[in-house]
Amino acid sequence: MAGNKEEVKLLGITGSPFVCRVIIALKLKGVEYEFLEENLGNKSDLLIKYNPIYKKIPVLVHNEKPISESLVIVEYIDEVWKGNPILPKEPYNRALARFWSKFIDDKCVSSASKAVFTLDEKEREKNVEESNEALQILENELKDKFFGGEEFGFVDIAAIFIAFWIPIIQEVGGLQLFTSEKFPKLYKWSQEFLNQPLIKENLPPREPLFNFFKGRYESLAASK
Amino acid sequence: MAGNKEEVKLLGITGSPFVCRVIIALKLKGVEYEFLEENLGNKSDLLIKYNPIYKKIPVLVHNEKPISESLVIVEYIDEVWKGNPILPKEPYNRALARFWSKFIDDKCVSSASKAVFTLDEKEREKNVEESNEALQILENELKDKFFGGEEFGFVDIAAIFIAFWIPIIQEVGGLQLFTSEKFPKLYKWSQEFLNQPLIKENLPPREPLFNFFKGRYESLAASK
Repeated sequence: MAGNKEEVKLLGITGSPFVCRVIIALKLKGVEYEFLEENLGNKSDLLIKYNPIYKKIPVLVHNEKPISESLVIVEYIDEVWKGNPILPKEPYNRALARFWSKFIDDKCVSSASKAVFTLDEKEREKNVEESNEALQILENELKDKFFGGEEFGFVDIAAIFIAFWIPIIQEVGGLQLFTSEKFPKLYKWSQEFLNQPLIKENLPPREPLFNFFKGRYESLAASK
Repeated sequence: MAGNKEEVKLLGITGSPFVCRVIIALKLKGVEYEFLEENLGNKSDLLIKYNPIYKKIPVLVHNEKPISESLVIVEYIDEVWKGNPILPKEPYNRALARFWSKFIDDKCVSSASKAVFTLDEKEREKNVEESNEALQILENELKDKFFGGEEFGFVDIAAIFIAFWIPIIQEVGGLQLFTSEKFPKLYKWSQEFLNQPLIKENLPPREPLFNFFKGRYESLAASK
């Protein structure tokens, strides 16, 4: 690419928490980008070209070079555009940020999703329990206003699934996975975080997302 | 800690590929450390203190500060001790290194292990197929002598499971997951990598490891 011309494309869908992580990182850095909305029922040639391994969103394409995996992308964005750092500076704190964001992906995301979107009662109970345990660990871990301290950072961005998506899907499934009674500190964090102007402005609209998950839940129930 | 005094401890077991990653990183950087051999049947108070979330090895304890998750530890080591870099310098190559090391953990490690250590024929077939697919993707990806180019790096270290552990467990299970016929480039890579003096000197001895896995395999078969 010639000179300073940056071409940044993001392949994604509006309602994905993983895409939302990348959008927040790009907005935080003030990076202009083109959003290419995918249809996951009929994946674009571009998605298959740029993420041949997983064929999953999000994919960030920076000057024709593709990167997949949301946390890898966020860290890449943090390394390329230096202002408004997302990861902490000090190696130990960076390691903790990587540890906790992996914990969120490994322990919170799938257990909460599976707790809602399953027909099997035993499977639901197991996942509700796993979700509870994982959220309790985060509740105990949260020491400051944000996971990143006084400013939000990598772990907070990774945890957007907890702040915004879990409340929606638990309502869809009639579950109480994440409430202010069960996890008061984490709940307070989620409100603070969602109220940050940059976050608030870049969340997908709640109602269509609720309806999307409601439809998925009902078609699952109907297939019983 | 006073002055330059560094206190580095590694909690692990000798035969673990995840611990081996950390040992290689420490040796590459020339960091002196104390190895604390764990007994996973009776975990030490230190392990429970330093990794209360997972109670798993490896844990690196640097000046009393613990870090878990082998890839997080290797990246930490690379950030703290600057000589002999493990990750590439350029952000895009760093992102690729993180992507591929995550791919190895997500797609190769568990499929190959499950292919060997299962009684269920269908489960075995499924995992053999997944392991094949993942190794084929790596075979296609390998362009240079090492994943890191002319010198080994982050992805090579992550892939030590493939180079050293898969040949052992496939022999135990009488499978052909990773052979020179199926994956010639990857096999050549594994031989080059294992022949690097630093790697060769820091691998666990093969025979006790083989016997350990053989025992595990036989006790599984006996429980049929």
